[in-house]
Amino acid sequence: MAHQSGYSLPLSPRGAASLVPAPPWHYVGDFLVIEYWADPAAVAAFLPEGLEPHADPGRCAALFVDWQSCSDSGEELLEPARGQYKEFFIVVNATLDGEEVTTCPYIWVDRDFALARGWIQGFPKKLGSIHITRYFPLASRAGPEVGPGGRFAGTLAAGDRRLAFGAVSLEREAESGPTHNDAPLINVRHFPRLESGRHDEPALHELVRARSRDRQISPIWEGAAELELFAAPYEELTALAPVRVGNVFRFAFAYVVDDLETVQDLTGTRMEVGAEP
Amino acid sequence: MAHQSGYSLPLSPRGAASLVPAPPWHYVGDFLVIEYWADPAAVAAFLPEGLEPHADPGRCAALFVDWQSCSDSGEELLEPARGQYKEFFIVVNATLDGEEVTTCPYIWVDRDFALARGWIQGFPKKLGSIHITRYFPLASRAGPEVGPGGRFAGTLAAGDRRLAFGAVSLEREAESGPTHNDAPLINVRHFPRLESGRHDEPALHELVRARSRDRQISPIWEGAAELELFAAPYEELTALAPVRVGNVFRFAFAYVVDDLETVQDLTGTRMEVGAEP
Amino acid sequence: MAHQSGYSLPLSPRGAASLVPAPPWHYVGDFLVIEYWADPAAVAAFLPEGLEPHADPGRCAALFVDWQSCSDSGEELLEPARGQYKEFFIVVNATLDGEEVTTCPYIWVDRDFALARGWIQGFPKKLGSIHITRYFPLASRAGPEVGPGGRFAGTLAAGDRRLAFGAVSLEREAESGPTHNDAPLINVRHFPRLESGRHDEPALHELVRARSRDRQISPIWEGAAELELFAAPYEELTALAPVRVGNVFRFAFAYVVDDLETVQDLTGTRMEVGAEP
Amino acid sequence: MAHQSGYSLPLSPRGAASLVPAPPWHYVGDFLVIEYWADPAAVAAFLPEGLEPHADPGRCAALFVDWQSCSDSGEELLEPARGQYKEFFIVVNATLDGEEVTTCPYIWVDRDFALARGWIQGFPKKLGSIHITRYFPLASRAGPEVGPGGRFAGTLAAGDRRLAFGAVSLEREAESGPTHNDAPLINVRHFPRLESGRHDEPALHELVRARSRDRQISPIWEGAAELELFAAPYEELTALAPVRVGNVFRFAFAYVVDDLETVQDLTGTRMEVGAEP
Repeated sequence: MAHQSGYSLPLSPRGAASLVPAPPWHYVGDFLVIEYWADPAAVAAFLPEGLEPHADPGRCAALFVDWQSCSDSGEELLEPARGQYKEFFIVVNATLDGEEVTTCPYIWVDRDFALARGWIQGFPKKLGSIHITRYFPLASRAGPEVGPGGRFAGTLAAGDRRLAFGAVSLEREAESGPTHNDAPLINVRHFPRLESGRHDEPALHELVRARSRDRQISPIWEGAAELELFAAPYEELTALAPVRVGNVFRFAFAYVVDDLETVQDLTGTRMEVGAEP
Repeated sequence: MAHQSGYSLPLSPRGAASLVPAPPWHYVGDFLVIEYWADPAAVAAFLPEGLEPHADPGRCAALFVDWQSCSDSGEELLEPARGQYKEFFIVVNATLDGEEVTTCPYIWVDRDFALARGWIQGFPKKLGSIHITRYFPLASRAGPEVGPGGRFAGTLAAGDRRLAFGAVSLEREAESGPTHNDAPLINVRHFPRLESGRHDEPALHELVRARSRDRQISPIWEGAAELELFAAPYEELTALAPVRVGNVFRFAFAYVVDDLETVQDLTGTRMEVGAEP
Repeated sequence: MAHQSGYSLPLSPRGAASLVPAPPWHYVGDFLVIEYWADPAAVAAFLPEGLEPHADPGRCAALFVDWQSCSDSGEELLEPARGQYKEFFIVVNATLDGEEVTTCPYIWVDRDFALARGWIQGFPKKLGSIHITRYFPLASRAGPEVGPGGRFAGTLAAGDRRLAFGAVSLEREAESGPTHNDAPLINVRHFPRLESGRHDEPALHELVRARSRDRQISPIWEGAAELELFAAPYEELTALAPVRVGNVFRFAFAYVVDDLETVQDLTGTRMEVGAEP
Repeated sequence: MAHQSGYSLPLSPRGAASLVPAPPWHYVGDFLVIEYWADPAAVAAFLPEGLEPHADPGRCAALFVDWQSCSDSGEELLEPARGQYKEFFIVVNATLDGEEVTTCPYIWVDRDFALARGWIQGFPKKLGSIHITRYFPLASRAGPEVGPGGRFAGTLAAGDRRLAFGAVSLEREAESGPTHNDAPLINVRHFPRLESGRHDEPALHELVRARSRDRQISPIWEGAAELELFAAPYEELTALAPVRVGNVFRFAFAYVVDDLETVQDLTGTRMEVGAEP
């Protein structure tokens, strides 16, 4: 047993200081899921080793999520700065050994614990500024209805630049939910090495499959979508810009995460690390 | 007619750049209203000229509000960073010419447009970091129920120090709403003068009465409250710390603001400006 | 004498809570001053009443400043979050009754006290995110030299969008400083009215002349400039984009402010307030 | 060779999107180093396996650093939001196989790239808000002198709570620099596992020795120190509060990092992960 305690850095005598407390992690949030298609070649270029292009070429989804999360103790609910965060991410569709899957090439959140918790799951999180229109249960010009004509939007900025805008005009209650983000999520869990001469040999490089439980979903509304991705140096996001936009879905979703499956341990893979922006 | 256009600074050729666009302003938000009593002498010391202590001595309320707001155009709903903000404030109870009123000695928000919009209304806003537990319509450990046992909290920090914590355990749907923040709101609209030798003669110093319209309220839940105010140099907030805490109320509220009544123009009043922290 | 004390909101029993403490205000900062010319008609359209276009049409300067400031007590130096801020602003050149002057149509800072202190002086401040390359007294690739070839840059974002980029390659120590920001500064001190039916009659609308004392300046370096302004809805900044860029100057500057001269009280002027972005 | 490129997450086709670009990393910064002693038993409880208490029991240092950093490209100097950050950390003194060493139990920074770059080096970084008094080369009340009587301070907040305050009154130029942070730095590089049933078996758990090159230091000033650490739930920082404070040193420092030595691979160690705050 180690001298120090804790699930993540910082370790400490009692283990109370970890930026990310031990799983399980409970999540509930409001989702905007925008289904779209990007350039198929661009999508293929983002696939990690082991994944093949999807039969519906270029299929992607862009998601804005307004999250509240906590550990088993629930202490984050009384200190909401420790549990709330907002998120924007993209999933691209692919296959793994013939199975339909998704993978997340880009994701931004606005809190440190969510960034670190994401890296542990293979989500390549950076910090950003994300804002998402909210629903309130009163008829006000300041709050769109969850009903026909209701307009909700999401925005992302990072590095002091606008990176994404998405919006929906709700039309109807959906009979089924989005499909572009429905397949199992395969990510790359990666942690670099700093030893001189070995920067291209990550200490950790694994294909992982997300696992969750106790999934719940609210009634789903759908409508017409808008999506724009904006260029920035030090990002390659616009390679995944929409060439066609489909439907958008709005709903609440909850789940619990305390597991992750390693599909393939790729540690030992050499990386091309040196590209300059 | 002026060369430049706009409702607030910055003025500009088309008037599109104003930090605060022209009224009306539409608001909807989730409220936590904590009724409490502070030291009566301390409350009396915060009253602006013209107001007298309330018959229920020391009566106060502390409010955490999660707001979404917009101008008539509603453009803020598609750019939610321009309309959403969080707020913590205190109102103390008083009388004005025998009428029961409230007045707001302290208030923090987390966005610049809300700060400036507040000063225009006589709210003495500073920037702070405010977080408030949210409700989601799914049963999850990460989201409290609006129902018996539901726990919601609010926190305030400013100047890199924690200033307030409030929480509620919901017990029942309330038959009526809070009373400590119910009476008309009388604030001091104040704008300083910088001319040498006249720093103690504000350019604007008015007793004003808030006006609003199209007020709506959701069903109200009430329960047992906790409230703590924390000391900081450069604040006098703890003078208003609770000596007794009453009920707390949770509800959504919406209204429209495009008016303000000047009760008394006190411009010309000399101020004591020089106190050092 | 008023019941409450303080120089600015919030007023309080002891006057210690004011967002902006009483003058004098002491400032010291690192400046990047980029001299440039915008479209003369655009510059003319930004001039407040009373100012006429400059003989050198379209003359402007863009300034990035990394400030440290304090009140007479100096307490901000032991609580640097209360005194440090960064700033980007533009001045356009004009004449007032034949005298060469400048005026500031746009300015962003990153702290609330600086925003409010600016409004008191007639600076139309909004909050933004400003970053400026710093000098350190060691030879490192991470720190440019104040010497030939030294590259310094400034960036501005607000509302989650990039608004400005400026940079310099230093060439030589300058024999004299910048001229585009040298003439006296004439601003519009403005505070809106909220009374229904009178939104177009500001409570305060004055042409003011900045006053300062104890001005000091370090040795000045100059070089070749880059400047870009970027479009955003709800800003009219790009109307002032450079059509020609001149020199840039880098230096430290200090002064004290405790005065302001009202050149003309324009209160009573009707404003066009209703423009939508 | 992997399909994707980059040194850190997010990986991408060209490798330009990595939150942390490939080493070498160049750093220059202004340091406040406060030498102090904490409770020896508390310090011992923070030591990772392999480290033994130092002969001078309880010896620690607290450091505030105002950093500018870049990769080999130097692009961060033209986009300073990507290279500047502020930092507060503590080092405790220990021995490793009889050699005097230090180790860092706690560290906060204010930017995401610095957080991730720290984890790669075994620095247990969280995000915080850090402010540090700056020096400017002009005599102003707003800028302390680097000379006798010059007062500089640093503050840290995280999770919306004040965590640390340090200050110095400079007295004299020092003949030698600080010793409490002088010995080689031994950290724990740690990355958690999420697989169900194995949360207590980190994927990576290594004792590492920091390596750097091209170290430079400016003239050093020293003086009398103040240091306070403040309690917060979810931190164990106050266990390391000062029982005695020594000297404080102020200087600029630069170095380059592109290496790290693994002293001992402790992967396989079982952790106590479950402690609740």
